[in-house]
Amino acid sequence: MLENLVIIGSGPAAHTAAIYAGRAKLSPLIFEGQFAAGVAAGGQLTTTTEVENYPGFPDGIAGPELMDRMRAQSIRCGARIETKTVERVDLRSHPFQVFVGSETIQAQSIIIATGATAKRMNIKGEDRLWQKGISACAVCDGALPFFRNQVLVVIGGGDSAAEESSYLTKFGKKIYLLVRRDTLRASKVMQERLKSNPKIEILWNTEAIEVLGEQKITGLRIKDNKSQGERILEAGGLFYAIGHLPNTSFLEGQIECDETGYIKTKSGTTLTNIPGVFACGDVQDHTYRQAVTAAGSGCMAALDAERYLSHHS
Amino acid sequence: MLENLVIIGSGPAAHTAAIYAGRAKLSPLIFEGQFAAGVAAGGQLTTTTEVENYPGFPDGIAGPELMDRMRAQSIRCGARIETKTVERVDLRSHPFQVFVGSETIQAQSIIIATGATAKRMNIKGEDRLWQKGISACAVCDGALPFFRNQVLVVIGGGDSAAEESSYLTKFGKKIYLLVRRDTLRASKVMQERLKSNPKIEILWNTEAIEVLGEQKITGLRIKDNKSQGERILEAGGLFYAIGHLPNTSFLEGQIECDETGYIKTKSGTTLTNIPGVFACGDVQDHTYRQAVTAAGSGCMAALDAERYLSHHS
Repeated sequence: MLENLVIIGSGPAAHTAAIYAGRAKLSPLIFEGQFAAGVAAGGQLTTTTEVENYPGFPDGIAGPELMDRMRAQSIRCGARIETKTVERVDLRSHPFQVFVGSETIQAQSIIIATGATAKRMNIKGEDRLWQKGISACAVCDGALPFFRNQVLVVIGGGDSAAEESSYLTKFGKKIYLLVRRDTLRASKVMQERLKSNPKIEILWNTEAIEVLGEQKITGLRIKDNKSQGERILEAGGLFYAIGHLPNTSFLEGQIECDETGYIKTKSGTTLTNIPGVFACGDVQDHTYRQAVTAAGSGCMAALDAERYLSHHS
Repeated sequence: MLENLVIIGSGPAAHTAAIYAGRAKLSPLIFEGQFAAGVAAGGQLTTTTEVENYPGFPDGIAGPELMDRMRAQSIRCGARIETKTVERVDLRSHPFQVFVGSETIQAQSIIIATGATAKRMNIKGEDRLWQKGISACAVCDGALPFFRNQVLVVIGGGDSAAEESSYLTKFGKKIYLLVRRDTLRASKVMQERLKSNPKIEILWNTEAIEVLGEQKITGLRIKDNKSQGERILEAGGLFYAIGHLPNTSFLEGQIECDETGYIKTKSGTTLTNIPGVFACGDVQDHTYRQAVTAAGSGCMAALDAERYLSHHS
C-alpha cells in the first residue's frame, strides 16, 4: 500500500502536522504508537495535569484533554490514526518503507514527531509521586500554585539544572540543587550567579535515594556519597534536570542527528538530510520543548511535506 | 520608567510571548497598537472568519474569538496591555527607549511581534468583499467549505502565486491565475507544472479592475492590458498572492532585515542582531505565516528574553 504521508508520533507536533496535511488533502496516516517510548499516545502532555501556557485557553486546560482535542481535530481534518508502534523504517530507497508489526507500509514522505522522553532516576517513590510534586520541566510547571513558596529541589549538574534552579527562585522560597559530584558542568558565569543567589543552596556530592510522601511529595531521602551519611530533606517539589532522550532508536541511524541524539533539521525548516523525511517537535528541539513550539513546528513539517509532494508525485 | 520587557504587537506571537513572560514573572508590558499598520489589535486573525487549523479547537474557532482568548490569557498570566501604537524606538543604547505618543518608556528588553500586512490591490469592491470571498492566504482559507468546487482566481506573478494556484486545485473546480505581464517570476519547474495542470488556466497580461458581488464575491471585472478589452470573469473566490509587508517602519532601520524587509533572526532562535531585542511571528517569517507557527515563535521569544534578562539584570 502506498501512502502519501506517514506521520509517526502522537503529541502536539504530530497532530498539528496531521491537521495541516489533512486540510491539504494529503490524507495522512498517523501511527500514534502503543505506549511507544514508555508514554501513552498523546505524548508527554498526557503525563501532566494542568497546562496554563498553551495559548487559547485562558483558564488552562488539562494536558490529556488538550491532546484529545487535537486528536479529534486531526481526524476531522482527514487524518487516519492507527494505535500501533512503528518498529523500524527503511529510508534508503524511495518510496520509504515503514514496518509496523507484520505490516509494511510504503510512504512517499514521512514526518517524524516521536518526541523525547524525560530521563528518570528510577528511585523509590518516583513512580508514585510523578506529577504529584515531581516534574521534568521547570518552565512548564514551576509557576503552578502547587509549587509557590515551597522548598524546591533540583537534581542535575549541567546548564539546564543551573538555569532551572535560577528560574525556580521566582516561585519557591528556597531551592536546593543536588549535584552528584563536587563540581557543576554549567558555565562559570552561571555558577557564580547560582552561588550569589541567597535562595539557592547547592548540595555537593549528594544523591537522592528516595522520594517521600503519599498523595504528594513531602521530602527526599538524600545521601552524601562521600560520607555515605543519609538524611531527610523536606521539600514541596522536585525537578529533574537530568536530560531527555529523543526517541530515535527506530531510525537505526538512518537520519543525521546531532551529538546529543536529536534529529538535525535544515535551519528554519523541518527538512532532514533525507529529502521527503521531515522532523518536528521535541525529537529535533532540545532548547524550547513546549507544546506550542512543537505544534508550530508540526505545522511547518506539513507545509514542507506538501511542497515536497507537489514537486515529487 | 524602566520596564523589564516591552512586547510590541497583538497577534498570536505577541500574546504567546506575553503568556510565557508573564508566567516567568517578567511582568511584560504589551503595546497592542491602535489600528497599527491598518489592522485592529489582534492582528490578521481579526480579519478572518473561521479558523479550522489552530490546534486545540476541533470544531474551529472564529479568528477574533481566538485572539480574545489569547489576550485574556496574557492578562491572567500577568501581562499589562496598553492600546497604544509604538511610533519609534531607540535601540542604540541600553536600556532601549520606546516612544508612544508623548511618553517615553525605558526597556531592558523588547520583543517585536508586529506582524506583516497582506498587500492589497485597492480596486473597486475590494473593501466590501474582503473575507467575503477575498483572501490573502490560500493555506489558511482554501479548504473552507465556501471555496469548495468553485471557480477560484489567484492574482500574482511570483512563486507564491504559482504555489497557491497549484494548492487551490485541491479544492476549486477551476483556477484562473491572473498575471499582469506575459511571464511568471516562478521557477521553470513550477511553470511547467502549472501549465500541465488541466484545472489551471493562466490569463497573461491581465489585471483585475473590480471585484463583483454584494454579500459575497460573484466575479471580477478584468482587463487585457494589451488590447485594453474588458470582460467579466465569474468566480466564487479570489486569492491575493501579491505579497506581504512586514511591519518594521517604526524601527527606522535599526534592526537588520533581509532583502525583502523581514527581520533577520539567528537560526533556530528569535535573537536579532541587537542583544536584548527579539523578533517573532510574521515580521520575521515569510514562509509559513500561520497562527500556530507565530505562537510557537512567540514562546521562543519569551524564553530567549527570560534567559537574556537573567544574565543581564
